[in-house]
Formats: sequence, C-alpha cells, structure tokens
Amino acid sequence: MTVRFALLGAGRIGKVHAKAISANASATLVVVADAFPKAAADLAAAYGCAISTIDAIEADKSIDAVVICTPTDTHADLIERFTKAGKAIFCEKPIDLDVERVKACLKVVDSVGGTLMVGFNRRFDPHFMAVRDVIANGEIGDVEMVQITSRDPGAPPVDYIKRSGGIFRDMTIHDFDMARFLLGEEIDTVTAYASNLVDPAIGAAGDYDSVSVILTTATGKHATISNSRRATYGYDQRIEVHGSKGAVSAENQRPVSIEVANAKGYTRPPLHDFFMTRYTEAYANEIRTFIEAVEAKTPASPSGLDGLIALALADAAVKSVKEKRAVPVSEITGVLADKSVFQGR
Amino acid sequence: MTVRFALLGAGRIGKVHAKAISANASATLVVVADAFPKAAADLAAAYGCAISTIDAIEADKSIDAVVICTPTDTHADLIERFTKAGKAIFCEKPIDLDVERVKACLKVVDSVGGTLMVGFNRRFDPHFMAVRDVIANGEIGDVEMVQITSRDPGAPPVDYIKRSGGIFRDMTIHDFDMARFLLGEEIDTVTAYASNLVDPAIGAAGDYDSVSVILTTATGKHATISNSRRATYGYDQRIEVHGSKGAVSAENQRPVSIEVANAKGYTRPPLHDFFMTRYTEAYANEIRTFIEAVEAKTPASPSGLDGLIALALADAAVKSVKEKRAVPVSEITGVLADKSVFQGR
Amino acid sequence: MTVRFALLGAGRIGKVHAKAISANASATLVVVADAFPKAAADLAAAYGCAISTIDAIEADKSIDAVVICTPTDTHADLIERFTKAGKAIFCEKPIDLDVERVKACLKVVDSVGGTLMVGFNRRFDPHFMAVRDVIANGEIGDVEMVQITSRDPGAPPVDYIKRSGGIFRDMTIHDFDMARFLLGEEIDTVTAYASNLVDPAIGAAGDYDSVSVILTTATGKHATISNSRRATYGYDQRIEVHGSKGAVSAENQRPVSIEVANAKGYTRPPLHDFFMTRYTEAYANEIRTFIEAVEAKTPASPSGLDGLIALALADAAVKSVKEKRAVPVSEITGVLADKSVFQGR
Amino acid sequence: MTVRFALLGAGRIGKVHAKAISANASATLVVVADAFPKAAADLAAAYGCAISTIDAIEADKSIDAVVICTPTDTHADLIERFTKAGKAIFCEKPIDLDVERVKACLKVVDSVGGTLMVGFNRRFDPHFMAVRDVIANGEIGDVEMVQITSRDPGAPPVDYIKRSGGIFRDMTIHDFDMARFLLGEEIDTVTAYASNLVDPAIGAAGDYDSVSVILTTATGKHATISNSRRATYGYDQRIEVHGSKGAVSAENQRPVSIEVANAKGYTRPPLHDFFMTRYTEAYANEIRTFIEAVEAKTPASPSGLDGLIALALADAAVKSVKEKRAVPVSEITGVLADKSVFQGR
Repeated sequence: MTVRFALLGAGRIGKVHAKAISANASATLVVVADAFPKAAADLAAAYGCAISTIDAIEADKSIDAVVICTPTDTHADLIERFTKAGKAIFCEKPIDLDVERVKACLKVVDSVGGTLMVGFNRRFDPHFMAVRDVIANGEIGDVEMVQITSRDPGAPPVDYIKRSGGIFRDMTIHDFDMARFLLGEEIDTVTAYASNLVDPAIGAAGDYDSVSVILTTATGKHATISNSRRATYGYDQRIEVHGSKGAVSAENQRPVSIEVANAKGYTRPPLHDFFMTRYTEAYANEIRTFIEAVEAKTPASPSGLDGLIALALADAAVKSVKEKRAVPVSEITGVLADKSVFQGR
Repeated sequence: MTVRFALLGAGRIGKVHAKAISANASATLVVVADAFPKAAADLAAAYGCAISTIDAIEADKSIDAVVICTPTDTHADLIERFTKAGKAIFCEKPIDLDVERVKACLKVVDSVGGTLMVGFNRRFDPHFMAVRDVIANGEIGDVEMVQITSRDPGAPPVDYIKRSGGIFRDMTIHDFDMARFLLGEEIDTVTAYASNLVDPAIGAAGDYDSVSVILTTATGKHATISNSRRATYGYDQRIEVHGSKGAVSAENQRPVSIEVANAKGYTRPPLHDFFMTRYTEAYANEIRTFIEAVEAKTPASPSGLDGLIALALADAAVKSVKEKRAVPVSEITGVLADKSVFQGR
Repeated sequence: MTVRFALLGAGRIGKVHAKAISANASATLVVVADAFPKAAADLAAAYGCAISTIDAIEADKSIDAVVICTPTDTHADLIERFTKAGKAIFCEKPIDLDVERVKACLKVVDSVGGTLMVGFNRRFDPHFMAVRDVIANGEIGDVEMVQITSRDPGAPPVDYIKRSGGIFRDMTIHDFDMARFLLGEEIDTVTAYASNLVDPAIGAAGDYDSVSVILTTATGKHATISNSRRATYGYDQRIEVHGSKGAVSAENQRPVSIEVANAKGYTRPPLHDFFMTRYTEAYANEIRTFIEAVEAKTPASPSGLDGLIALALADAAVKSVKEKRAVPVSEITGVLADKSVFQGR
Repeated sequence: MTVRFALLGAGRIGKVHAKAISANASATLVVVADAFPKAAADLAAAYGCAISTIDAIEADKSIDAVVICTPTDTHADLIERFTKAGKAIFCEKPIDLDVERVKACLKVVDSVGGTLMVGFNRRFDPHFMAVRDVIANGEIGDVEMVQITSRDPGAPPVDYIKRSGGIFRDMTIHDFDMARFLLGEEIDTVTAYASNLVDPAIGAAGDYDSVSVILTTATGKHATISNSRRATYGYDQRIEVHGSKGAVSAENQRPVSIEVANAKGYTRPPLHDFFMTRYTEAYANEIRTFIEAVEAKTPASPSGLDGLIALALADAAVKSVKEKRAVPVSEITGVLADKSVFQGR
C-alpha cells in the first residue's frame, strides 16, 4: 500500500515533512495547499506534487492522510474537519494554545474513531530512541532523575513570539514531552523560573527567553529542563537519565566531526544550526511511524492526549512562574487521571 | 617563611589536609590532636609530626595556623578559641549547622581581626578555576545560566546522615558556593525539590538523597543544581556556564583515560571514586592559598561570610522543599545586604 | 536537466548507487542490467526502474550515463564500449587489476573525449571533505605527515579474496587515493609490510590481512597507512593530518552516539558496521558530483588517471613487501610525470 | 627502610627526579653533584640536600643509590664506577650512543651483580600502564598491531641536536621501548623513513625532524611510530593497540580539561607543554619502582638490556633510512638471541 498525502501549509516545517514523505517509498505526496500561492507553488515544484485547496482535499476520496503545518490557530478546526472526512491526521504541535479547545477537539477525534498523531519529532531521533531503549531494557535500573538541556541558536522574531503562546507552549513543550517519554511516569508538579536575558524585545512582548524547570512525579522522580533562546555554538539538544543502576546520555550532534589542533587548543565545529538539520533522521522516522499506523490502522503515538498533556504542563509552568510556587498539574487539567495515556506507547 | 601548622582532627579529611601541608615547601605540619589517640598516632606517624592536645596547641606560640577537621558541632567554639589565641584558621565547612551560631562566631573573628578561611575545596580545582578564568576574561560574555551536576558515588552511613544537618547543609552546600563563585552575583531566591530514591533508611532518618534546585539572582540569572547520593560510575562533578557570547564547561575526571573497543562498543573506565582522589590538586591549591594569605596577612577567601551565605542557601532550600515555593534568601538572613562579600575575591 | 542512468550490476555496491541516484532530484534511474536475472529484478522492483541488457543500453540514445558495478574483470571493456557509445561513465574502483590494461582503457576514453569518474567514495565523505577544506584554507599550514587508519570489521570470504587482486588493490587502494587527496603531492616511494594475522585461509590464498605502509613524496612528506581485515568494534575509518601550523583529524562515526555509564565505566556503541552505512552521505555526494560533471560537461574527478595512480601504488606496495625495500613508484609506471593529474581537482 | 640517594646532574631531568625522590616517603635525597656549582646549589636549596662531588659520593658508604642525569657521554663510565662501589643505579637513557660501549658497560654491571635501571619513564605512565594491563588481562586477545604517535611541541636547539645522537637515539628510542613493552615480542626488522620538514638547521646538522617507522616481529606483528619535532598544540603522546578481540588506546593528556563553546565551535585547551608536566605521575611511579627493587634486592626493570635493545633499534632505523630497506635487527646486534630479556618484566 502507498499512503497518499495532502500537505496543508508550505512553510518551513511543511517543507521538512514534504521531504520526508517524498523520500519514503510507502508514501506519495499528492497535493499541497497554502494560503500563499507562491509558497504552495514552490513546494509543489520542488516535490512534484499538485496544488490544491482545503475544500478540494477534504472532498478528495483518494487522499488517505493529511499533514497539518498551518498556523497554530487553525489546527483544531482542521483536525476536526479532516477527521470527519475520514483522513488520518498528522498535526504539528501544539493542537491549540488553549487546553479546553484541545479537549474539545480530541473528543471529536475520539467520536469519529480517527487517527491523530502529534508532531513531537524528538521522540524519533535515533539517539534519543537509543536512550529510551537503554531504559526500556533495564540497563540503568529504575529511572530517578532526568536532565534536559535545550537551547535554540537564536531568538525568533518578536512577531513570531507574539503568536507563539509563549516560550513554554512553543519551545519547552518539546522538553515536557521528552521528560514524560523518558520518566515513564506522569508529571505531578511543575516548578518553573523564567527570565528575560537574551532579547529585551521578547520581554517587552510579555514572554521570557531563559527558563529553568523542575518536574516531579508522584513517586519522587525529578526532571529538570534548561532552556534558552540563545546558543552561540548551535542547536544544543542534550538529555541524560540517571537510574538506580547507571546513567545514559545523548550528546549533541554536529554536521561534521573533525577537530583542528593548534596553539589555541583543539577545536571542533559548531553544532547543527537548527532543528531542520539536527532532526533530519527524526522527521523521516516520525513520518514512517505515522505511515505504519495508517497502514496498520493502529493508534498513532504520540497521540492527541500526549499533545494535551504537554500543553497542560506548559500552562502549569506559566502559572508557577507567576505564583513562584510548585504547581500541581491537577490544577490545570484532570486528564492525568486517565490511565490509558501510556497504553499507546 | 614557613607556616607552622597544627591539625585538629585526624579523620578522613584531616588526612587529606595533612598530606597537602606536608607536600607544601612553605609549610610544616608540627602537631596533630584528635580525641581518638590511635587516629592521632597513625597520622603523626605517617606525616612525621608530634601528637598534642587542644590546650597545648592553644598555648603554643610557635604555631601559626590551625586546620580544623573535627566534628561540625565543635567548629564554632574552636574558631573562637583559636582566633583569640592569634592563630590563622582554616576550617572545614560548615562552620556550624545553625546560621545564628555562625553569625556570632564570625563577629568574634571580626572583632579579633583574625584570619579565617572556609574549606570550599572545589573553588581550587584547576578545571573549575579555568572555567572561572574564562568567565573573568569575558570569553563567554555575561553569565546567564549555570548548571551544576554533583553526585556522590554512594550514600554515607545513616549515622553520618543524622549528624550531617541534612543533604543541603552537607552536600549541596558545596554547589551553593560554586553557584555563587560562577554567577558572580548573590542568590536572590532558592527553589528546591528533594526526594528519597536511593536509600529508604535516609528517608527514615528524615533526610533526602535526591535533590534538584533552581537558584535565581536579582538580575534574572539562573543556576540549577542536580544532586544524588548515587552514581554507580564514580564521583560525578560537572559544571557548565552559559553566557551571552558562549558557554564553558568542565567535564568529569577519571584516574586513567584509556578506552577499550570491542564488539560491545567503546568503554572508558569509571570516574574517580570520591573527593579524596578527585580533588587532590584542589586540596593542594587550597592549602597553598591559605598559606599565602597567612604569609601576606591578607583576608582569606572563601571567607567566613562565604560559609555563612552557603549555609543560609541550604536553610532556604530546606524551607522551599517543605513549603513548595521559591524562598527569598532574605527570609533566612540579612547578610546578603552586606556588599563587601565579594571584595575578598 | 535530469540525467538518465543505466546501472550495470545489481549487487551490494550497485544497490548503494541505485539508492543514491533515486534520491537525487536531478537524476532518474532508468534501467538496470545484471547477469543474474533475479538480482536485476529485485533492484528494479525496489527502485522502480526497468530491466535491460548491456546491448540494449548501449543502443539506447536516451541513456546519458552508465554506472558500472559489475565484476572488476569486466570494467575496462565496459568503459571502452560505453564511452564509445557516448555515455558518461561512473565506474567502481579498480578499473582493472592490471596497470597496462588500465592505461589502454584510459587512452580509449581520452581519444573519445568521454567523461569517466572512478568510485573513490571517501573523497566525498563530509568529514574527510571538511579535513580537506581545512588544509585548503591553510589552517594547518604546509602538510607534513598524514596518518590513515582503515580497518574492516571482518575479513571477506576467501572466494572474494581470490578475485580481489589482493588487499593492496582491493582495500588499501582507497587509502592510497586518500593519501594523495590529503598530501596534495604525488607519491614518490612506497614501503609496505604485510602479514597474515586474522585468517589463515587468507594467507593460504596468497594474500595478507594486516598491512602497514609508509608513503613518501619528493619534498619529504610522509603518509602512513594501517590496515586490517579485523576490527571487532566496527568499521574503523580515521585520518589525521599534521602541518606546520597545526593538525586536523576526522574521528570515527557511529550510528548512535549515546553513552551508558555504570560501575564498569562509560560505554559508547560500536561504529558503523561497514561502508554502506558509514559512507551513506559520501555515496550521495559522489553521485551528485558525477551528475554535476555530466550536466556541466566538465571533467569528472576522481578521474581515470586517479584510478590508475592508486593502482600503481598498490603494485608498488606488493613489490615492496616481497623485496623488503622502499619501491619508487616510477618503477611501476611513468604516469606521475604527467603533471596534469591534479588539474581536475 | 629509607633509601638514601645521590643525584648526579642538576639539570632539567635531574630536577624532575629530585622532586620525585623528595616526595617519596621511602627515600631521602642526601646529596647532589654537578659540574656547575650554581646548578647544584640551586637544586640543593630547593630540595634541602647537601652538595657533594662524584668522588665523595663514591666513597660515601651511607649512599644506597645513585641517579645519573649527567650528559650521555659520561653515563657508561659512571655506571661502571658506581656499580663497583656497590650503589644501585638509576640511569637516564641512553646508556651510551654506541652499542658496543653499552655492551661492555652491561658486562661490568653483570659481573658485579649490581642493580641497574634505565629511565624509560613512559612505561610508568598510569594511562600506558593501564593499556598494558588491558593487554595482560587478555581483554583484547592476541596483540596484532601497535600505533605510537609521539610529537614534541618544538625542536630543541641545534647544539642539543648535535650531541643527541640523532632523532632515533634521542627521541624515537622511547617509542622503540614502548613498542617492545606493548608488543610483548622482540622486534625482528626496522623500516624507517626520515625527513627534514620542521627546521632546516636540523637538516644542516645532519639530523632529521620527521620520522615514520614500521617495526615487525617474527610472528608478523606490526608496530608503527610517527614522530615529529613539531606539534603546535602541545606534547602529543598517544598509543593504540589492536588485538584479535578488540583494541585499547590511551589518549592525550591536558592540564585542564574544560571546553569553551561559541560561534567558532568547541575548543579545549592545548596539551601539556612537555614531558616534565605530562609525565609527572610517571616519574613518581618510576622512582618508586626503582626504590622497591633496591629494597627488595630484585632486578630492576627496564633493565640495562632493555636500554641496549632500544639503542640497537635506533641504529637499525638509521641504517634503514640510509639504505631504503627493512633492516633486520640481527644486523646490529645479537642481543635478541638472549631469551632472558623478558624475564624481568
């Protein structure tokens, strides 16, 4: 079977997925739609697909799956519309910036019995997957503490910041999901500190650019997250996990790994410049996993619920920064009572 | 000039200092005193010094300096007694487990005009000193975020735990001092989470064995600390500092740095087994720095005030864990108002 | 323009090139031919191309380029035949095991004015290319000494060994080419030592499995090569280059770069298992470079002459092992007098 | 027992040994002698020993051991004189620049039954010792190939070069000994290439500054050595050993192991500046091993024979460079027939 894809949104991340779909022998990128005709035309030319519209794609029975890369405020509507149209859906995170809107959207997906996968691409990075395998194999015993370092090479434009929902919902959300992925338990409380050290314009826009977080679980496990919108040396993406029998870590990746030695010392090149190059393999693995779920008609993971929980953790972090206290996640949402959350993993 | 030393306390850390003093060409270890005659005799034999008593050392005008390695609850009394006797004092941390007792002790030292140095050995590790130099040289711009990882290879006996003042005053205190050393600013708030994951007996004794901390400064800088009483792979001691122009880190140290490659992969040996081997050079540098201060009659650093502030941070951390909130350090003590604290550095 | 490819030979390396051609947007894999119908059919199915024959491909005017991955003893004949048919040719190394046959073949290519590129894939590895760039940028000054370590994870079957021309022509030939690539000068003498340490069957077949080589240039530069048919830890591929102002090295690559720490130490996974996974990017870059030469109608590099010289160095090495002396390359062939050899680079 | 030492020669290496002796609790540095009164006086002041003369030391029955750090051309005479005087002798390499003179000297030592240890300090480096232990424990199976990289940070003055016996006897001699130490077999042939790339003045003095060597054993094992008098990044000292079951390597050492990351990449500081700092621990271990042999009255290792063999390998290398061929060590000396050479190890 070849899964026939429509791509909604031909921007930066849309191109990443177009490339991954095109390179997958089990998939065909059939059409692309974008509000900007030129963006759609460029992507269509680059990947040899047709240009279409939301309405036409909705009506096209030959399309099996839709990849949603449009602006965040359109995600929930598009998910509802295309799940009702019988399409399997891959949606970039977040589903929405509002927890209640996400809940409502997920109810629609559930009622239809549709397939929905959320784009937490880092779960599919081969290095992080290997870390997870080491944990799953029991090599480090019981997980005790997780440390996640995640720094962007530079701050985005303030216009982006304003629409982003803030650093916790835009950037840390990936780390919240990774913490859950590695801890193997739900988060109980979120304690966050955030400040404005990189770009005063970000502060003026009401957001932060530097973040430290402590997450705890009911059994006393810890995860810490360190985020910054600045890393002069490239896209800094590291995790380490300490357990009762040992530890496992995934170091940073760089495009070339040479070393130059001279009187100043030993120098290796900077890291990857950003997620498009750092997570190339992850995006390919991610879309392959989605295709496999579509073909096998099994639930996709990370699920809509995973997307909802990560968003709730972001909301708890925002509240923690304001109230200078540890915020129980239950204050944000009752979803964690749903024990089925780990079943799809 | 040769500085003539008396050593009080011939236990584990006493031996470390005896070795460092003996190897220093500007110092002579003249006498040792210990409540346990055998301990004193063994150390005296190993380092070729005499055995004496507290009283005799106090009365001995030929002794220039006293190194205090006795149990914590004797430190403040001994500092007061020997500073009045005109001796320069090097005291192992902490000065006392009670902030008010420390304050009173420091007033006595100040009134006498005595020399007091507190044993935060890590400031003298060549790798951490090099990190500090990189910061001081402006190579990474303004410091923004500090990450400290500090894990002991194993938990101490519960008897030790009970007398220790708890993990924050016994273990994290070093990291609190290191955070101040690297941030170059005083700590404004302490947020801590602690749990019991390693040894239930530690929990039964009312202490924790796993700690995550966020420290903040008035200008919005962050420091995070990750502590555990467990590290199967050796004594884990790492720091990294992120600034506006770059980052600097100090990696773990191991006694031998070979690598064996076979079908299972590439394996390097475990780290140093604990502080005596990991910080050998630091202890030598530390005692040399003390000797230089004694010889030059200049204030010693880290000072008694540094000891007091680190203890106050530990108290704030204890309070934060209990009250699940960010604790302003000003709730513990007013010392941070004293702007002279960084002058001696 | 899209370059239309025919692939001759559907074996292991044929599949590697089929994959690289298919993934290149400027190329189409049109047909494959193989003496074994099943091999051709499998590859055709996997990459969506037609099955054809040598004769039909020769006659097909729509085919622009031919990739030759057939057994070595067919290479020279196929090159001559297809260059006369006006096809651009990419041929796996070596062109032939006999220097005189290679010379004759290259004369045919020259007389036709055809495009011929030889498959020294390592020149296109991004890490080795970065090493070369460092040299070209003058960062390490004048190159003085090159060290190449190249170990296969395991010995091939003896049947392969017997047809291979021996370890120098089969395996070290890549390192000879890399030495030239990095030294930027022609080799003057070859001194080699070879022994049989890995598999006695290889010795019984008249070949070696363990090799050390010293190459020298007329200006006194050195290159050393260390080869083995055994590396329990994966495919070992390292280079380092020392110059008057510094050194540059490229370390080994592994599929995942995690590290597990426990009481036994710190362990990273083994290296890539062999060239197909280690040099994935190199193969893609290589075929892209060939396509660019075909499109631009410029000479392809590495050229047929590069292939000839590497073979001559292998012959010199064989002679050196037998005669236990440094063998001037001029004893093997006069090609090095041709100063045009570096022009295409 | 405390071994009482006399030190002959108060130059650079003399100071290194004075420091190691002083720091050893089982040894006392009693006297120093040097043809330059100021050199002797400085060292005597620094280490608290007396100044004496060769004659007085020879006559002093209280002296147990003599460390010879005088110019090379005095070594053999001093060894003979002091071994007859009943002193245990530690002599810096080489014993003499002439193989026949060394043989004669060793005969005298043997006839007296004296203790003689030769200063191949690298055998006592903890990292190289760990490599040797890995081999001895069978962790990498049978040793097959050894690679030694050894580069000095800079060329010595030409005056030193002229008296040194040439690079093979002065510098490579350490690597020849290390190759034997790691191979566990005697060297059968030496093939060397040497050129003049670093400093033309060295070439004008008849010596080389850049060396590549292949050593072989009777069973077909290989060792390669790469030497240069130039390494802009510090004192480059690496070994790797490949065996039938795996490989083991010892990487370079640096005084501080921090890393600075910025837009130019990740930079670690240069290596140790030279042998005095790189091999501090090795010198301490070396003198301790000598003291243990003196105390236990057991043969010291590395022995005089080890010194003789390394010199013979250097002579073979010189011959190989001139005659452009593999030189059997038996052409230089018959000592390898003496199977007792490995007994003391």
